[in-house]
Amino acid sequence: MSENAGNSKAKRPTLTPMLSVRNGAKAVDFYQAAFGATVLFRIDEGGTIALLSVEGAEFWIAGESPQNQNFSPETLNGSTVRLILTVDDPDAVFDRAMAAGATEVWPVEDKNYGWRVGRIADPFGHHWEIGKPLK
Amino acid sequence: MSENAGNSKAKRPTLTPMLSVRNGAKAVDFYQAAFGATVLFRIDEGGTIALLSVEGAEFWIAGESPQNQNFSPETLNGSTVRLILTVDDPDAVFDRAMAAGATEVWPVEDKNYGWRVGRIADPFGHHWEIGKPLK
Repeated sequence: MSENAGNSKAKRPTLTPMLSVRNGAKAVDFYQAAFGATVLFRIDEGGTIALLSVEGAEFWIAGESPQNQNFSPETLNGSTVRLILTVDDPDAVFDRAMAAGATEVWPVEDKNYGWRVGRIADPFGHHWEIGKPLK
Repeated sequence: MSENAGNSKAKRPTLTPMLSVRNGAKAVDFYQAAFGATVLFRIDEGGTIALLSVEGAEFWIAGESPQNQNFSPETLNGSTVRLILTVDDPDAVFDRAMAAGATEVWPVEDKNYGWRVGRIADPFGHHWEIGKPLK
């Protein structure tokens, strides 16, 4: 991590999820293709660690290290945190992620709790809910 | 989720982690005590779902539902996402979380990558790195 990494939104506190994956380099490629993510910071020595930004919505990816209690969803056969990605056009973002190799959990649809949202699993086993509040 | 929940930072896209836990009500209590979190939104029917804010750093908690692929760290015996909480005073936040019942993974210390940071596991098995960049 660089001095500024993870902190580009300036005002503290900030909370940024760090996703454990089996292959960090492949994950960077996927999130660039699926979400148009940009790479704010990256190191590849000893396993890829990268800070990605989807137009300011930031997350880390890091190679798993079970010896350090960092487990990928593939290793645990499930994930313990969902990523709620709120965007202006959930349908478009969902479709782009699917085209990049995500798996549909349920499609984008209007929910009775006032959101239009769909859910995908990415190729690394992390789950994303892509949606927006209905006006 | 209400129409505005998860969206109080206004500008999209936003990314908000949703932590699966075995007992949502207990988790709300813990995060209030540990981090001084405030409750922005909460429903308790059919299991607690809540949106919490640590001075603007937001996260959801939700009772696990393995049938819907939402697993708590207790169920999977590990977690797949670390929460990177960047604050002005990591030592104070770390100590408060420990006093509220967290377990130390490693203490707050200056790292060679330019951060002062410590890591805890919370009572529900989620792991938090509490730190700030060194100037």
